[in-house]
Amino acid sequence: MKRSLGAQTLAYPLPTWIVATYDRDGRPNAMTVAWGGICCSIPPCVAVSLREATYSYHGLTERKAFTVNIPSEKQVVEADYLGIASGRSVDKLAKAKLTAVPSSLVDAPCIEECPVVLECKVIQTVKIGLHTQFIGEIVDVKAEEGVLGPGGLPDIEQIRPIVFSPHTHKYYAVGRYLADAFSSGKAIGE
Amino acid sequence: MKRSLGAQTLAYPLPTWIVATYDRDGRPNAMTVAWGGICCSIPPCVAVSLREATYSYHGLTERKAFTVNIPSEKQVVEADYLGIASGRSVDKLAKAKLTAVPSSLVDAPCIEECPVVLECKVIQTVKIGLHTQFIGEIVDVKAEEGVLGPGGLPDIEQIRPIVFSPHTHKYYAVGRYLADAFSSGKAIGE
Repeated sequence: MKRSLGAQTLAYPLPTWIVATYDRDGRPNAMTVAWGGICCSIPPCVAVSLREATYSYHGLTERKAFTVNIPSEKQVVEADYLGIASGRSVDKLAKAKLTAVPSSLVDAPCIEECPVVLECKVIQTVKIGLHTQFIGEIVDVKAEEGVLGPGGLPDIEQIRPIVFSPHTHKYYAVGRYLADAFSSGKAIGE
Repeated sequence: MKRSLGAQTLAYPLPTWIVATYDRDGRPNAMTVAWGGICCSIPPCVAVSLREATYSYHGLTERKAFTVNIPSEKQVVEADYLGIASGRSVDKLAKAKLTAVPSSLVDAPCIEECPVVLECKVIQTVKIGLHTQFIGEIVDVKAEEGVLGPGGLPDIEQIRPIVFSPHTHKYYAVGRYLADAFSSGKAIGE
């Protein structure tokens, strides 16, 4: 028996990603978001949604570029801080002891300490409501050698990304392997 | 030291969601997607991206409605199957022994066995490339009583949703609690 919970942003699992941008003066800034996801395979694109009231929104609008920095669970406190503070008044990255390095491909900084970084150019901006969605074409993905597994692909068990649980406001680790995709379901049919 | 991996849809963690629709003849259909995420708080919205070649795409385009059904890890094989087979040729839900029940709010079916279901009306369609993104306003969320925790909110530890790892094609469970959001970062500042 299901209970109606009303119109709410309750979905699971959600990501914990750090969106990094330059502001008008070229200073790096970053904010943590959970409203985002991959949205296209060709071209490869990722979408992130920001409120216009955030400082990052303007960096993103003006520079037409951003990076998605995927924190590891050991960076959970830093990631949470970047979602609480505003870059208007403080150098958040310096305060969180994180290092901004320029992307060579897009007009945005990368966070050195994050194991995986997606460098993105804004190709569409979609006004929705309180949030505006930025669709970024992923022009490159860079990953620490230490998180690469067989075939040179990032291994989620080495990245140890952070799952966000909305409304209850909690972060979780990624857990145990369950099954192979595009494979385990063949037990039912194809 | 980071290695360049090229322009790829490598992001972590990604969700495993079952999008359910009616086809032209009113038959329920469902497909599993990992390209999606919450995209707005007010109105509450979720985005899912589908290729035009899928059978579900047309259900979604014509009915302007869909549900996001969040499977539990015990449904991982069924979820994988729904991402492999096409509803053109087979009643996928019946074959996976899943039950479609009509939503009372939107023109789409809900999957009874999934612990959480988001009922959505399409408010924007965004052509990107191979994928088209459907932005759905969440008009209600329904959850099994058994997954509700303190305050009547769904508890991710009871839902046990599935994390998708792209390219390596693996499903993972949600793991241990890490930290409180909008709180743990205050150790650094506000």
